[in-house]
Amino acid sequence: MIIVPEKEIAGLMTPQAAFEAVEKVFGAMARGDAYNFPVVREALGEGRQYGFKSGLDRVGAVLGVKAGGYFPGNAGRGIPNHQSTVYLFDPDSGKPTAVVGGNLLTALRTAAAAAISIDRLARKDAKVLGIVGAGHQSAFQLRAAAMVRGFEKVIAWNYHPEMLPKLGEVAAEIGLPFEAVALDRMVEAAVIITITSSPAASLMDAHVAPGTHLACMGTDTVGKQEVEPALLARATVFTDELAQSVTLGEAQHAVAAGLIGESDITEIGKVINGDHPGRTDDDQLTLFDGTGVGLQDLAVAASVVDLARAAGSAIEVDF
Amino acid sequence: MIIVPEKEIAGLMTPQAAFEAVEKVFGAMARGDAYNFPVVREALGEGRQYGFKSGLDRVGAVLGVKAGGYFPGNAGRGIPNHQSTVYLFDPDSGKPTAVVGGNLLTALRTAAAAAISIDRLARKDAKVLGIVGAGHQSAFQLRAAAMVRGFEKVIAWNYHPEMLPKLGEVAAEIGLPFEAVALDRMVEAAVIITITSSPAASLMDAHVAPGTHLACMGTDTVGKQEVEPALLARATVFTDELAQSVTLGEAQHAVAAGLIGESDITEIGKVINGDHPGRTDDDQLTLFDGTGVGLQDLAVAASVVDLARAAGSAIEVDF
Repeated sequence: MIIVPEKEIAGLMTPQAAFEAVEKVFGAMARGDAYNFPVVREALGEGRQYGFKSGLDRVGAVLGVKAGGYFPGNAGRGIPNHQSTVYLFDPDSGKPTAVVGGNLLTALRTAAAAAISIDRLARKDAKVLGIVGAGHQSAFQLRAAAMVRGFEKVIAWNYHPEMLPKLGEVAAEIGLPFEAVALDRMVEAAVIITITSSPAASLMDAHVAPGTHLACMGTDTVGKQEVEPALLARATVFTDELAQSVTLGEAQHAVAAGLIGESDITEIGKVINGDHPGRTDDDQLTLFDGTGVGLQDLAVAASVVDLARAAGSAIEVDF
Repeated sequence: MIIVPEKEIAGLMTPQAAFEAVEKVFGAMARGDAYNFPVVREALGEGRQYGFKSGLDRVGAVLGVKAGGYFPGNAGRGIPNHQSTVYLFDPDSGKPTAVVGGNLLTALRTAAAAAISIDRLARKDAKVLGIVGAGHQSAFQLRAAAMVRGFEKVIAWNYHPEMLPKLGEVAAEIGLPFEAVALDRMVEAAVIITITSSPAASLMDAHVAPGTHLACMGTDTVGKQEVEPALLARATVFTDELAQSVTLGEAQHAVAAGLIGESDITEIGKVINGDHPGRTDDDQLTLFDGTGVGLQDLAVAASVVDLARAAGSAIEVDF
């Protein structure tokens, strides 16, 4: 059994490798070669959340589970509130093959999903990237998005504006001008990533120009919401997993309001596999509802195991 | 993070320690201090089954998941068809604390549950132990049962009688006479353990004498069945977890037939806690429906971690 501790992940995994791993498994999901098992999610009391996301990729030969959750007391102890670990198994024998730190991987796989949607769905000539949300995850989103389009500027909004300068530092690092803006300035963006944790919509229909690609990455639970449902009615809607999109993803609200139905939503894997054209028109609004699935976690963890083996940095335990 | 490989478990864990750990968590479950999360169970194709059983014991401070399954191709490779691993976490911070081999532990915790039911519910003067089933698990059941009553003889039946001599060897090891019998001879037993994997009842109402304690340990899935439902109607019925008992335990059939209802079944933890008298009459038939819950696995794994620490045999990985 291979152990890859959390502290080793940053030296092994890259946004590019996460992009490739997640793109591959999204394709496998849309072909029916890979599927996610039911998600377990439990409230433990005192604000703690814990759960298990698991799945099987038959072709990639990956079976596993991500155990993880949210522990609001951690910040006071100097450790991240989000804690997760990925466990992999040999799908033929069931024997445990790997234990991989899942904190950084979760950030990378979420950012990779948005970048994949931008790569496949945004206008090729996109110059302005809009980001709604400036928390911990927003920096990962920015770095991943910058890989797939030649952006010339980043504009960003956050409910707590004092958090924006930190995101601006990331933009500066990758050489992009950065401006903190009001939400109505998002009409200037050709790509908008929403990465908030909010119970009500921030981005409204009027804030989004025709031809924009919108990656909604923050809604992964019943009751969260990032954008006005009218945007989903106006857009061609894509997602990672249809079942999650309509129940706990951003689409939950537009579906509940009767604005769109399941048949209006396409799994991005179909675009990856060439079974759906994706964007067909420069004025078309495209929207990716990134809900986050266990197979993303397993795919990036499997990549890390390969990278750790190649680098000779894997801890091997005779289990 | 502590690693306790499968090969170390036999040298650390005892039936007695498993008994104590499982008894404690059954008590915690009945008090509402511990609860099992929803079970994930998936068919992977080619007969392979995989799943996750998880839970939280607030008082014992145990949070974890057992990942495990059935891989029929393993026998040909010289490894067990059943494969499982237990992962533990700090319930306060969510940090992973242990990885523990779960194969032997699963056998010990299942046997412990039956022994707990015998200890709490069987007549004190029980002399003859009946065992229905002679597969891998039956030896564990016999060893655990022999701890809690002064049995003077073991009688056993199996669908494949050629498997019985191996169980007879275990009886000989612990100094008990052993006889292979027809099912109707089970009327001689004061305690009967059923441990089969069958889609239809083996043990019938007429095979069971008044005053017997019956521990039904084999039914953990919809469609499995070990005993005639009339036995549940006749018995005072106990279980590990009510929700599993009526849906996928032995009681599923008697409940579906309308012979008993949920309110006729008592969680054994109530007897352990002194909130239910258990057996009140020497002629009373008592029946324990052992369905197997994740908290049993977590409890024995937590014991193993303590034992490995005390023995200095734990592998510590800086995770």
